[in-house]
Parts: sequence; C-alpha cells; structure tokens
Amino acid sequence: MKKSIGAKTILFPTPVFIVATYDKSGRPNAVAVAWGGICCSAPPCVAISLREATYTYGNIMERKAFTVNIPSEKHIKEADYLGIASGKNEDKFAVTGLTPCKSDIVDAPYIEEFSLNLECRLINTVKIGLHTQFIGEIKDIKADENMLEKGSIPDIGKIQPFSFNPATLTYYGTGKNLGEAFAIGKGLSGKKK
Amino acid sequence: MKKSIGAKTILFPTPVFIVATYDKSGRPNAVAVAWGGICCSAPPCVAISLREATYTYGNIMERKAFTVNIPSEKHIKEADYLGIASGKNEDKFAVTGLTPCKSDIVDAPYIEEFSLNLECRLINTVKIGLHTQFIGEIKDIKADENMLEKGSIPDIGKIQPFSFNPATLTYYGTGKNLGEAFAIGKGLSGKKK
Repeated sequence: MKKSIGAKTILFPTPVFIVATYDKSGRPNAVAVAWGGICCSAPPCVAISLREATYTYGNIMERKAFTVNIPSEKHIKEADYLGIASGKNEDKFAVTGLTPCKSDIVDAPYIEEFSLNLECRLINTVKIGLHTQFIGEIKDIKADENMLEKGSIPDIGKIQPFSFNPATLTYYGTGKNLGEAFAIGKGLSGKKK
Repeated sequence: MKKSIGAKTILFPTPVFIVATYDKSGRPNAVAVAWGGICCSAPPCVAISLREATYTYGNIMERKAFTVNIPSEKHIKEADYLGIASGKNEDKFAVTGLTPCKSDIVDAPYIEEFSLNLECRLINTVKIGLHTQFIGEIKDIKADENMLEKGSIPDIGKIQPFSFNPATLTYYGTGKNLGEAFAIGKGLSGKKK
C-alpha cells in the first residue's frame, strides 16, 4: 500500500561531497555538500547546490572554480565537521588539520588526505530557489596512487566512500558488490514481449 | 602520492534512479539514470540528466513531468535492464512486469513495485553538453507503507537501495550505519584554532 509522505528532499543514495574553494583573500575553505551529482558526460561535469548564505557560494562566484573531494570512512568526523561549521567564523583547514593543495589547473585547492579530487571550472550557475546550482566542468581528477587499481581506476573497496541519509540524517558506508551494470539485466530483454 | 587520472565522470556514491514518464501517446516508459541528485531544498527539487537521443528526453519535453523511483536490491535486474533497453524499441513495463501507476499530481507514472516514488513537475531545463539537465520540483513522495518507520520516514534498512560505481560499471549495496550527521564532527569545532 502506497502512502503520501509529502514533498521532501529524500533520495537514496545521497552523497557527501567535500567542496573546497579559495576566498577573495586566498584563504582555503571546505564544506560538505549533499545536493549534487554528475550532470554531463561530455564535457564531464558535476553539479553542486549551495545556499547564497554559505561562504563557499561567495568563493565560487569570485573564483569560478571548486574541487569536489571524496572523503573515506576514516575521515567521517572531519567531513561532518565541515558540514557544521562555517568558513565565515572558523578556519576549517586549521581545525581539521587537513591539507589544502594548490591545483595547477583550477583556482581552487584540493584536499591532500582525501583519495579522490575532482578539479572543476565553473561553467554555469542555475538559480533554483533557496539553493543555487553550480555546474563545474571536471578538468582533471587527482587520486591517491595506492587507491587505484590497474594504475588508473579508483578502487571503491579501498576508498570506502560513504553516503548521507537525508531521511534520518545518518551516514552509511558502501555495501557489497552486487554485480555488473549493463549486464545482469540483459537476460530480461525481449523475454515477455 | 597523487596521480592525475584525467577528466572523467567518477564520483562516489553515484545513484541508480529509475525515471518514469509517458510518451506522446500515453505509453509509460522507464529508464535508469545515474547522473542526478537533489538540487534544492525549497522548493524541493531533483535534477536528472539525459542525452537528447533517449526516449525519456522527448517524453519529459512533451509532458513536463517525470517520477524518480528508487529500486531495491531485489529489483536490481529490472533496474539494470531499464538502463540497457530503449523505450523506442521495447515496451519496458511489459518486459519487466513492473506496474505503472497513474499519479494524481503529475503527468507521469510511478512504479508500484519500487518503495519510494518522487513525483516531479519540470521547472527548468539546462543544456550542458551531451546531456541536458531536467530540474523537477518534487510535488509529493509516495512510499510503501511497510518501508516506513514512525509512519512517515523511509527506512533505508528495509528499502535496501543500491548505487552505481562509474569507475568499474558495478553496483554496490548500502553498507552499515556509520553515525549521526551534524553530530559526530561537533567535537572538532574550535579544537585547534
């Protein structure tokens, strides 16, 4: 039996992206963002949404760049903190001890300790409502060498990314491998036509 | 040591959304979409990206509505099939045996067998590159009553949503509860200033 539960922002999985930027004076900042995802294959682009009140909103408007960093389970406390504090009041890199690295490609720092770092140049902003969406073209990905398989494929088992449950405000780890995409459903095609 | 792995569409977690629509003649269709996510809290909105060549692209342009349905592990084969076949050539509801339900709110069907159904009205389209982004306002969510806790909160443990790994084209289940958001990182605040 279906029940209406109202118009809410509940979807599974919802990510935990750590978005890093520079402010006007060059000070690095980072924030946890749950509203976002890949939005185009060519050029490769990622979208993240922010309220205008956030420090990162102003930074991206100023610098036209950001990085999306994927935290591992071992950095879950740092990631959570980055979603609580504001760069307006705290130096979040100093508090967490995380390291902002200068990118050669975009005007935004990436986070040394996080395994996967997407370097993005802003190509579009879309005002929606409370949130504005920033679309960034992914210019390169930096990855920890020891988190790669076959030299260039990020290893999800080693990276141990986690997700956010917007229904209960809880984090969840990555579960087990369930099978190959574009493969396990092939048998159905044409079966019952 | 960081290594450049190039400009790719790799992010964790990446979702498996099943987007359902009607075509011009009223025939229901559904497709698996990995590029998307929540993009605004107020009004509550979700973004999904599609190539112009897809059947669903034309359907949304025509009907200005879509639903986002969250598949459970037990329907992983059906979900995978929906990402392989095209509604141009196959009646995907007939092949999978899934049931399209008429929505009272938007001009798109939702999928009976999937636990969580977001009913969305198109409010914006953003042409990016190969993909165009469709922003839908979430007008209501329908949920299976037996997948709710406290009467209205979707229970991720019962729903068993899964995600897509774009680096290896593999599906992954939901892992264990890692703790409370906006809570476990509180201890860090102000510590090392």
